[in-house]
Amino acid sequence: MKMALIGLGKMGANMARRLLRHGVEVVGHNRSQEIVQQLTKEEGLIPSENTLHAIQQLPSPRIVWLMLPCGAPTENMIQELIPLLDAGDIMIDGGNSNYHDSQRRGAMLAKHDIQYVDSGTSGGIWGLKNGYCLMVGGEKSAISEIEPILKALAPAEDRGWAHVGPIGSGHFTKMIHNGIEYGMMQALSEGLSLLKGKEEFNLDLGQITELWRHGSVVQSWLLDLTAEFLDKDQKLENIEPVVADSGEGRWTVSEAIDQGIPAPVLSLALHMRFASQDTPAYGNRLLAMMRNAFGGHAVQEKE
Amino acid sequence: MKMALIGLGKMGANMARRLLRHGVEVVGHNRSQEIVQQLTKEEGLIPSENTLHAIQQLPSPRIVWLMLPCGAPTENMIQELIPLLDAGDIMIDGGNSNYHDSQRRGAMLAKHDIQYVDSGTSGGIWGLKNGYCLMVGGEKSAISEIEPILKALAPAEDRGWAHVGPIGSGHFTKMIHNGIEYGMMQALSEGLSLLKGKEEFNLDLGQITELWRHGSVVQSWLLDLTAEFLDKDQKLENIEPVVADSGEGRWTVSEAIDQGIPAPVLSLALHMRFASQDTPAYGNRLLAMMRNAFGGHAVQEKE
Repeated sequence: MKMALIGLGKMGANMARRLLRHGVEVVGHNRSQEIVQQLTKEEGLIPSENTLHAIQQLPSPRIVWLMLPCGAPTENMIQELIPLLDAGDIMIDGGNSNYHDSQRRGAMLAKHDIQYVDSGTSGGIWGLKNGYCLMVGGEKSAISEIEPILKALAPAEDRGWAHVGPIGSGHFTKMIHNGIEYGMMQALSEGLSLLKGKEEFNLDLGQITELWRHGSVVQSWLLDLTAEFLDKDQKLENIEPVVADSGEGRWTVSEAIDQGIPAPVLSLALHMRFASQDTPAYGNRLLAMMRNAFGGHAVQEKE
Repeated sequence: MKMALIGLGKMGANMARRLLRHGVEVVGHNRSQEIVQQLTKEEGLIPSENTLHAIQQLPSPRIVWLMLPCGAPTENMIQELIPLLDAGDIMIDGGNSNYHDSQRRGAMLAKHDIQYVDSGTSGGIWGLKNGYCLMVGGEKSAISEIEPILKALAPAEDRGWAHVGPIGSGHFTKMIHNGIEYGMMQALSEGLSLLKGKEEFNLDLGQITELWRHGSVVQSWLLDLTAEFLDKDQKLENIEPVVADSGEGRWTVSEAIDQGIPAPVLSLALHMRFASQDTPAYGNRLLAMMRNAFGGHAVQEKE
């Protein structure tokens, strides 16, 4: 099995390592050359100088896996690759693309007889060790072709990867997965904040999260990771209370609106991230001024 | 180790089984005698006809574990037991009592020199097999005394149970645990509803939840159980869409208000349960009438 992997960032580099260690030949390409050289030296990656060079080193049908930031970087790379590929070649987008984009790209590539597969990829920095959870959309023929790759990336040959439906459904499933992740994270964070807030009991959050890992209903991988960092430091005073959000949380909430199906907790978990990003400051200023206006309540003025 | 277990309902009966199978002698008492007789025959429970009979069969200091519905049943039993117990005896409330009640009861029992321990107990119907997660509040001396019981109930001697703080903190920790559980459940249910709602992709929710169990960020015990029942039936057409709530979800939200700490997702998860209980019907009738009043929008009249 030989393939090209384009995009050797945090996710892509570890995926290259896992593939190489599972006997897949990987031609690597990345904008910056440093990681290419490192993986070549340490893991036996086949380096390439540019996309053309990467493609030329592949047997037919060529298999090209993209692991790039969603939006323009992925779109531009697909456009760059189209003239380099032949009918029957397979392109996989393993990044976090919007599923509407994946559907559009699948149709576009089909006009060139290039097979397109969208793979939602979960596992973060733990994927190298534990394997990645792969939610794969596309034609059965294309997915059969790349099966050895999926089996190498997954936690085991027979689990943690699946062909879930047509083109777009892989990224759709991954989008919903991330939406759920937002909600579960927020639920854990709110509950733990209430434990912390009960000063009278002086609770040890490291002890309690570790305790909950055994026999409780909230057992989860997120709890495992939380117990691990709380064991080292539970004051977290050096961490800014700002939580980033990426596309998939927003898209999940838009999807709920498109479907007309309520997802209030997933929506609110997203809005709480917005709130952490200092975006409600103007709204809170307005509220402080309104309370002042009708009730004469004091307003805190900035010094 | 010998103790009395009062309340052999769904939880209590399985706890008796686990204790007996781990070599603890258990005197059992229950309002209805059927389960007492069954456990006596099948598991070697020591039966008792009434609370006095149960207490009389215990060595000193007596250890009495209550596993009763919270509120009046627990309160009444404690009042009934006080005159039967002596100084130094230990009473454990393993049910889902409000932690304010547990604090009050601890102080009340202290006046009789009876030691009080509150144990938040998680594990549901799986506790018998997997062990219970026990969040224990009380004095160190009392908890040392009952340690063999906690070790028998927990998933293992060295994990899944902990002395988390003073009297009340066990039930407080369990309350927050259940609050988090509401949020995690709601997050999963909303996301899976959006997967189901995307009819175009015709997704197999049994396949996807099973897939997510391996290497994904949403790995959790709740997901394991969900994958299991979705594998058998994912239409769920025979299940009424009504979700009960118990005290702890409500108390968690009240606690957030008392502390002035935001817990919007846990609150909304609770309100979504209320909404499932048909309580918003009147509110929705009002909204339909308002839309009709200002916009002339049609109202669906009942046949």
